[in-house]
Amino acid sequence: MHDAISKLGYVRHRAPRGGSGRRSDLTVAVVVCEPAQRLFTEPFYARVITTTEEVLAAHGIPLTVMTAASTASTVTTPQLVSGAVDGVLLVGARERHPLVVTLGASGIPVRCVGRPPDGVELPYVDMDNYDGGKQAAEHLLLGGRRAIAAIAGPPGLPAARDRLEGFTRTLTQAGMAGVPVAYGDFTHSSGVHAVQWLLRRMPHLDAVFAASDVMAAAAVQTLRRAGRRVPDDVAVIGFDDAPIARRASPTLTTVRQPVEELAALAARLLLGSMGADPGAAKQAGANPTLPTELVVRESA
Amino acid sequence: MHDAISKLGYVRHRAPRGGSGRRSDLTVAVVVCEPAQRLFTEPFYARVITTTEEVLAAHGIPLTVMTAASTASTVTTPQLVSGAVDGVLLVGARERHPLVVTLGASGIPVRCVGRPPDGVELPYVDMDNYDGGKQAAEHLLLGGRRAIAAIAGPPGLPAARDRLEGFTRTLTQAGMAGVPVAYGDFTHSSGVHAVQWLLRRMPHLDAVFAASDVMAAAAVQTLRRAGRRVPDDVAVIGFDDAPIARRASPTLTTVRQPVEELAALAARLLLGSMGADPGAAKQAGANPTLPTELVVRESA
Repeated sequence: MHDAISKLGYVRHRAPRGGSGRRSDLTVAVVVCEPAQRLFTEPFYARVITTTEEVLAAHGIPLTVMTAASTASTVTTPQLVSGAVDGVLLVGARERHPLVVTLGASGIPVRCVGRPPDGVELPYVDMDNYDGGKQAAEHLLLGGRRAIAAIAGPPGLPAARDRLEGFTRTLTQAGMAGVPVAYGDFTHSSGVHAVQWLLRRMPHLDAVFAASDVMAAAAVQTLRRAGRRVPDDVAVIGFDDAPIARRASPTLTTVRQPVEELAALAARLLLGSMGADPGAAKQAGANPTLPTELVVRESA
Repeated sequence: MHDAISKLGYVRHRAPRGGSGRRSDLTVAVVVCEPAQRLFTEPFYARVITTTEEVLAAHGIPLTVMTAASTASTVTTPQLVSGAVDGVLLVGARERHPLVVTLGASGIPVRCVGRPPDGVELPYVDMDNYDGGKQAAEHLLLGGRRAIAAIAGPPGLPAARDRLEGFTRTLTQAGMAGVPVAYGDFTHSSGVHAVQWLLRRMPHLDAVFAASDVMAAAAVQTLRRAGRRVPDDVAVIGFDDAPIARRASPTLTTVRQPVEELAALAARLLLGSMGADPGAAKQAGANPTLPTELVVRESA
């Protein structure tokens, strides 16, 4: 039966996984500012965490993930500032999240994945969310859409604000002010509710830009149930280029975020500021922004 | 727009989440003996981690998750034994995993979710995997199936061994010895390869018992591509009663594991042995086993 085992790939678990196997006494935590359940429903987190594990493994550092939903953050903070953690990758930091403020004052090396809220001086890596929103708006305008709405992410999240701002400013410059906006929280159900609200407010809408692919897929499903054809009646553009964008039917036109590149860069810069990656140490002062890119598929 | 926000559920992130909000200086780690990518592809881990977070939150303890794939475990161990962690929920411990041995000797309170490998004296909570395998075999025998095969999980994992043993012993007692077994690693692709191997070895097989729902769903898909009807030509039984069992077409007959109950019990017993849950302290010496239950749907 051992032949069968090796054929079935089970042996992969025993093969080396790319790490140098070096021991390290350093501890790095990926802190996600959401309840744990969201780790498993939002593809962005899976991509960040999986990539981070690979970068850390190459330095012999194990992966630690902590969740810090807003109300729970008062209990996460003591562990982080007690010296049990040597570096933090902070994901999804929102305005007024107490952890963000405490971490900033703690002296622990931190690198935010995504720009932190205004007034918080933490180093970060970011994506050009503003330009992503702009590209989405331009695509809809060039396609002749004129009754355009947006499903935004939480307004306390800089990435969500940037996407919306790039989108609405571009439409305003084209003479289309007052674009209706419904706010979701990146979940499927919030995408459903957002489209229902937009359809009541603007029954003849012909285009929707959603701030995530999960919400865009929910929008497509809801529009079809309301009798609209996608993209014939309503064009839909998502954001992320998550696996769901290729699996959806129609496939989603979306703004690609280079999440793996972003997470790898964040991890390397964090290790640089911890002294664990001399090659990255000299770049540790920078806050780089990676480009986003419209990927045209079927939905718009 | 604030009305829209509250309608869309965004405010849920700011609402209390059931925790008492008590501060605690304790740190509990859920250590999963697999690479991080598996956290997002194996529904079992999502169920365990989400439930654990809820139990810990009620005690004001934040969730920490660490991954410890076999080769990486030498780097995880120092963090765990250095006193940075006050208690460990160990998930998916396999034979000869170095972490299992080190943790056992460390003196840190540990509770295994699932029985640990033989020779490792760690407290655990378990499910009656043997009885689950037995119920699957009985269902196939009573349905008149006579060319029966199994897709097992990794032989180093006690839960996988128990399921297989309950299944094959019951068949042997019914006069059906030498059941063909292909070993997978609980992933979709290993389920595909396992069925292809079984079909070559036993082209007229009329029933397959898979040790997880993900592998069972892969088996159904692969059998259909090979021209077999499910359940008419081949009955398929899974294990878990994961969400995929209800979403699959045909819906999966499966053995339900009470994963949420198991994880909650493990977390409470761990807190008991750490002195953080006086109510659970007196049961801390027990190694309870929860029952499993066949759920009959369409696939068998």
